[in-house]
Amino acid sequence: MDEHSDAAGLAEAMSETAAAVETVLDAELPRPDGPESRLFEAMRYSVLRGGKRLRAFLVRSGARLAGADDGGALLVAAALEMVHGYSLIHDDLPAMDDDDLRRGKPSCHVAFDEATAILAGDALLTLAFELAADPRVHPDPSVRCELVRAMAAAAGGGGMVGGQMIDLAAEHGGADHDLIVTLERMKTGALIAFGCEAGAILARRDAGFRRALREFGYDVGLAFQIIDDVLDVVGDESALGKTVGKDAAAGKATFVAALGVEAARKEAGALVERALARLDGFGDGAGLLRDFGAYVLARRS
Amino acid sequence: MDEHSDAAGLAEAMSETAAAVETVLDAELPRPDGPESRLFEAMRYSVLRGGKRLRAFLVRSGARLAGADDGGALLVAAALEMVHGYSLIHDDLPAMDDDDLRRGKPSCHVAFDEATAILAGDALLTLAFELAADPRVHPDPSVRCELVRAMAAAAGGGGMVGGQMIDLAAEHGGADHDLIVTLERMKTGALIAFGCEAGAILARRDAGFRRALREFGYDVGLAFQIIDDVLDVVGDESALGKTVGKDAAAGKATFVAALGVEAARKEAGALVERALARLDGFGDGAGLLRDFGAYVLARRS
Repeated sequence: MDEHSDAAGLAEAMSETAAAVETVLDAELPRPDGPESRLFEAMRYSVLRGGKRLRAFLVRSGARLAGADDGGALLVAAALEMVHGYSLIHDDLPAMDDDDLRRGKPSCHVAFDEATAILAGDALLTLAFELAADPRVHPDPSVRCELVRAMAAAAGGGGMVGGQMIDLAAEHGGADHDLIVTLERMKTGALIAFGCEAGAILARRDAGFRRALREFGYDVGLAFQIIDDVLDVVGDESALGKTVGKDAAAGKATFVAALGVEAARKEAGALVERALARLDGFGDGAGLLRDFGAYVLARRS
Repeated sequence: MDEHSDAAGLAEAMSETAAAVETVLDAELPRPDGPESRLFEAMRYSVLRGGKRLRAFLVRSGARLAGADDGGALLVAAALEMVHGYSLIHDDLPAMDDDDLRRGKPSCHVAFDEATAILAGDALLTLAFELAADPRVHPDPSVRCELVRAMAAAAGGGGMVGGQMIDLAAEHGGADHDLIVTLERMKTGALIAFGCEAGAILARRDAGFRRALREFGYDVGLAFQIIDDVLDVVGDESALGKTVGKDAAAGKATFVAALGVEAARKEAGALVERALARLDGFGDGAGLLRDFGAYVLARRS
């Protein structure tokens, strides 16, 4: 990755990682063949979609800071992007958020059908664990088991899936600020925190090192979500590539609904400040992660 | 487990395992607490449902034959039952097989709702991998990684999920015998084969030992499915606890549709014979697996 530690360097490092993880995903996702080919087409359609690949970037940046091998980190990044991709497919389903569009393209269940979308999500989640346990990720199997367990804890009922459950229950229910923090820490924070921590697991760093990166991930993840909510209200549709005002129309529990735009921005700023403080003492190796914190607040899309 | 190796002994050993794995599942499944409690309720509702627990029985019997620790085998059995439970929840969804009843009780999406059912399945699959990688399963992490990878391969796009994809595509399509064999080996065979092989992985047996148990699983699994198809046509509703004739009404690709009842029974018999031949040389330790083969053919429910 690029060595710069300013906004231009960050953008370059992020797009370099996005391209690298896309190549790995392309290689790891089975190619259509045989009567089940429709399943693999739907998996590839949903995951090989370009995009910023924030999670992959955080895995790779954390791995670099921790001193982990980049090849293993890229495979973990690909596994994490598979988990993220599965979650988007299932979240878009009619029974869930009922979204016909994802990044300007028809959602998986629209491009294929609901049954195929459910199965494509299931197969992606399964493949992510197969990949995380792959000997190519790390020569030490205890490291791979740690990765599997940490990724499962972040993705499962106590993490992402539990957060989505609360989110669905909170719609139109007037969720208060504390509940929104809880649900967003679970729904998006846990997987981002795992991504930040993964490099420290790969490099067998101690519990304190792991915790610092994980908590950095929780804080920037929550800040990222708050800015998402803000942009849904005040964002530029052409920059975002999506309709604004959707959350409010859907009665979603958002930080802006609970706090208003200004207080929400302020909270995101405080979270990024806390996140950056967690990197104190990590020196120059944490440059990209620090730049990422600044990017979270400054982004317009 | 019971030491008998006749039909009564088999029934006793099966019900002993069913009770034991139910206890483990009860302990491993999170209990409702917090705003996401509905998710855990749905998971527990779907998995703690009693039943024969064939997969758990095969894990435990294979482990015993291979000389693996029973405690670890029971945890793998519980993980496998979670994967099976998730697959039933998702298969029953309106977009898939649209089944309102499962073992005489409302399906998960009927008892809860579709979104909760999708998420409960997702969380169960995730938890299964977290459990398989748990240090309590085996002290050697390379064994746990093997289990994770073998279970993922059996459950994913190249196994169970791929088989379900083919099954949905084959409905009303007049699938031929070869395609039905392919889809059933993937849809139900792969997970049963993993269950049979798991004990050999736990006991670090060589590739030949693993292959023998895995192939035994594929053969009895396919025979089991064929008899399922036969019972759907000629079975006793009160013994089965479900409506007969459902597969034909749904236009399902079944062995009976492709072969007729008599030829289907004959094929099941040949498969069990081949399965038993794979156990040649394993001596008395394989008694329960041999009895299981006979049970597959003789069962009435």
